[in-house]
Amino acid sequence: MDFSIIGFARGEDHSSSFQAINPVTGEASMQSYAHATLSELETACSLAKKASTILANMPGVRKADFLECVADRIDARVEDLVKVMTFESGLPEARVRAEAGRTCGQLRMFAGMVRKGDWVQARIDQAQPDRKPLPKPDLRSMLRPIGPVAVFCASNFPLAYSVAGGDSASAWAAGCPVIVKAHHAHPGTALVVAEAVVEAVKSCGFPEGTFSMLYGDGRKLGKELVMHPFIKAVGFTGSRAGGRALFDLASSRVEPIAVFAEMSSVNPVFVLPGLMEDKLTGFVSGLAGSATLGNGQFCTNPGIVFHPDGPLGDRLLSEYVDRLKDIPPCPMLHAGIREAYVNGLDRLSSIEGVKVAYRAVVPSGSGGCDVGPCVLSVSLADFLASKKISDEVFGPSTLLVSYSSTDQLLEVVQGLEGQLTTSLFGEVADLKANADLVALLEATVGRMLFNQFPTGVEVCGAIVHGGPYPATTDGQSTSVGERAIYRFVRPVCFQGFPEEALPDELKEGNPLGIKRMDA
Amino acid sequence: MDFSIIGFARGEDHSSSFQAINPVTGEASMQSYAHATLSELETACSLAKKASTILANMPGVRKADFLECVADRIDARVEDLVKVMTFESGLPEARVRAEAGRTCGQLRMFAGMVRKGDWVQARIDQAQPDRKPLPKPDLRSMLRPIGPVAVFCASNFPLAYSVAGGDSASAWAAGCPVIVKAHHAHPGTALVVAEAVVEAVKSCGFPEGTFSMLYGDGRKLGKELVMHPFIKAVGFTGSRAGGRALFDLASSRVEPIAVFAEMSSVNPVFVLPGLMEDKLTGFVSGLAGSATLGNGQFCTNPGIVFHPDGPLGDRLLSEYVDRLKDIPPCPMLHAGIREAYVNGLDRLSSIEGVKVAYRAVVPSGSGGCDVGPCVLSVSLADFLASKKISDEVFGPSTLLVSYSSTDQLLEVVQGLEGQLTTSLFGEVADLKANADLVALLEATVGRMLFNQFPTGVEVCGAIVHGGPYPATTDGQSTSVGERAIYRFVRPVCFQGFPEEALPDELKEGNPLGIKRMDA
Repeated sequence: MDFSIIGFARGEDHSSSFQAINPVTGEASMQSYAHATLSELETACSLAKKASTILANMPGVRKADFLECVADRIDARVEDLVKVMTFESGLPEARVRAEAGRTCGQLRMFAGMVRKGDWVQARIDQAQPDRKPLPKPDLRSMLRPIGPVAVFCASNFPLAYSVAGGDSASAWAAGCPVIVKAHHAHPGTALVVAEAVVEAVKSCGFPEGTFSMLYGDGRKLGKELVMHPFIKAVGFTGSRAGGRALFDLASSRVEPIAVFAEMSSVNPVFVLPGLMEDKLTGFVSGLAGSATLGNGQFCTNPGIVFHPDGPLGDRLLSEYVDRLKDIPPCPMLHAGIREAYVNGLDRLSSIEGVKVAYRAVVPSGSGGCDVGPCVLSVSLADFLASKKISDEVFGPSTLLVSYSSTDQLLEVVQGLEGQLTTSLFGEVADLKANADLVALLEATVGRMLFNQFPTGVEVCGAIVHGGPYPATTDGQSTSVGERAIYRFVRPVCFQGFPEEALPDELKEGNPLGIKRMDA
Repeated sequence: MDFSIIGFARGEDHSSSFQAINPVTGEASMQSYAHATLSELETACSLAKKASTILANMPGVRKADFLECVADRIDARVEDLVKVMTFESGLPEARVRAEAGRTCGQLRMFAGMVRKGDWVQARIDQAQPDRKPLPKPDLRSMLRPIGPVAVFCASNFPLAYSVAGGDSASAWAAGCPVIVKAHHAHPGTALVVAEAVVEAVKSCGFPEGTFSMLYGDGRKLGKELVMHPFIKAVGFTGSRAGGRALFDLASSRVEPIAVFAEMSSVNPVFVLPGLMEDKLTGFVSGLAGSATLGNGQFCTNPGIVFHPDGPLGDRLLSEYVDRLKDIPPCPMLHAGIREAYVNGLDRLSSIEGVKVAYRAVVPSGSGGCDVGPCVLSVSLADFLASKKISDEVFGPSTLLVSYSSTDQLLEVVQGLEGQLTTSLFGEVADLKANADLVALLEATVGRMLFNQFPTGVEVCGAIVHGGPYPATTDGQSTSVGERAIYRFVRPVCFQGFPEEALPDELKEGNPLGIKRMDA
């Protein structure tokens, strides 16, 4: 039996437990994992609260050392991760190695950012004691950590958006303690990473409450975690229903807190009339790759494609179907995702005017999780007639929508919900000719792509992985890239404070040598 | 009869109307003001939505011209404002002129900010087409406007946090249309400013939906405004109940939106043991000035003062009472505020252990709004024993709490709700000796002051006027100063976009010459 990690200790109560299920074989894990109790949760929250003022005043270089140490410790456990994560997720070894690399890369990116220190947006207004009619006081402000953060592990990123993934990394970088709610589908993967984190906390001399990891049901233990008064923000990647439930809970608190839930997106693709015939095959091949990458289980999966009708559109559809027919069935991450995918396709197929151009007939496999890709088509008129047609179907399906004039697309975008991304394909002249469409789309999404597909999110300074609701619950944020740190901070101002009592970032001589705004 | 301003038109329905009441004399205004209808609200929202993509793509210099034009037009109407605002608010002429100056100063500050253009936090990641194993795409991101913003006018700042106050100015600067809900207590003041804004919108060639102003009940029309799907964020300054109600509404929407409500704060003052006897009289005089400024009707009013017990504390109390006895009765901004103040004092006085050291006996006056200052005292033990004792009493009252050791203050701060400010008085050595207290306070407030009083908020780059709930509904924001613009934006990323289709801020050659982060 394995237990939750409560600071430097382990949970003890084993009255309720669960096992991981291999989605390929249906086999249960040898190991069982005990659900955390409310008293274990309480201890984790108290430790986090105690740690929060210590972490808040930890110098950037020490936070950087810690983040790099976590990355090093994860690197050292990659062979363990390959073993347990391929079992728990059904994902291939190469994906495990790539995702571990991305996870460590994220940790090191935030380490670099806090080592440099500019990110705190220090602003200094010098005193003007002789100003008339009133003297101006000395005012200095910077971004400071918000307090303990609850992180919910994602099903589709057992490493990169789980225990030491982007949410945790950015929260630690900001100076916030983290309490992770592990995902029930990959408790063993979570444990390997959690052990690496605890080693790093100890070896860097960080406070015990820097990190805890709890096993438990999202609707029970997860709810208690979000409602706990010591928790000051929530990071989540998952379903729309799950994210909204957490948001509603957090908003109902006596002290409401921010929920940064990255939830759902159909990532619409617009093939503009300028896409030349000679580029069509390249487009189809790129779309097939993007739509089936990771078996369609990425938030940025392109789910709906608008294309001109007529011969070019017909060719696009038939070439695309031919491509997808070559893609073998593959297990989803767990049985629940498979079920939602199958139900989603049934729902879509039954909408007036929707034609199933290709739907692989796939037995559910030994693990009960196998699915194949699906291509559906519909006319723009029928698309506009249905309200539910643009709801996300999570998995390797694509809805192709044929339009006769780009003017019609304006109506589409007016009715579109918030999205993580949109991709426009065509010539530069198409963007100019459709400036209204581009402007409307910009107000609807977090990332605009031109002649590129949305999957394969680059982790860097300029990336935005966010977007208006329901892409996220907080459209002012991104969960990927350097900007993600800004979810877990708030500005604090010091007025008339003596040099000795100011944070280093705000001291007169700028001892850290960071970029500041002075006035 | 005067009507709401719906873009360039006026409301028409006069089935329901109201008048302003002079709080000094009780006299009703000559003019009546018609409540906006739901159809007028609908028109205002549609105009705002239409304007939003135009404003989003308005160059910074044109937004700066507009903001400066609004300021100029308000400047030109100051004599009108003196007339109507002294009538409606009972505030003296000097205050009207000062607040008009602050309002225009804010508009010009944001103008300067958007003219310079650095504020958009542009980030550029250059493409690396030869990177292995995968090429890196070109990624560029910046902050973009969030869409139409609803602004609720504050009762205590008829100019600086009303029609063209800090919320509106920062929203326009960000590139967002604004729909203002005028405060029922100063409809005439609102109208003068609104006319100035409309003139500026026209003269700058801005779209009609840049601005509308609605008269109406907060709980009816205000609710409809917050629930309207075209509204993307809310700015509010007012009571805790009012702000929370708007927050709950906004959170219950199909598409939840952010509410930036600045609500309540007791702005605790800590007199540390190092405050020398020779500085006591200066402290008392400063406290009296700060606590009764604007008749105590500022969000940053210092409502609770913790001081050492013993002879120094006794002297502080008696000197403070002597000071306040000299302060004449004065009308509150409207009868509702007076009533809440009187009830608040009754509530406070009835708490176990609270002694009324001084409470001016004041007839309510011709306008029914007059009140006088009040001083209450309590021991720390009794303070800690009551949960409700630290709730805000809006007005010129001060609760003095005597403590015997600074260790006790840690317990106070642990139990303290979020605050806009805290002020520490003493010697530099006090800050060092009480580092734990200072660290805990920092996690609780938006602004920390040393040997200064919190009223007289400086409008500048470094100021923070915000704080954890219930100081505001969004502790990550400030409603005053340059940082206030960040409430109304969200990051948008452009991937692989051609130079011609990028915003100027992200173009390769940096034609605007703004500061950017490049990688």
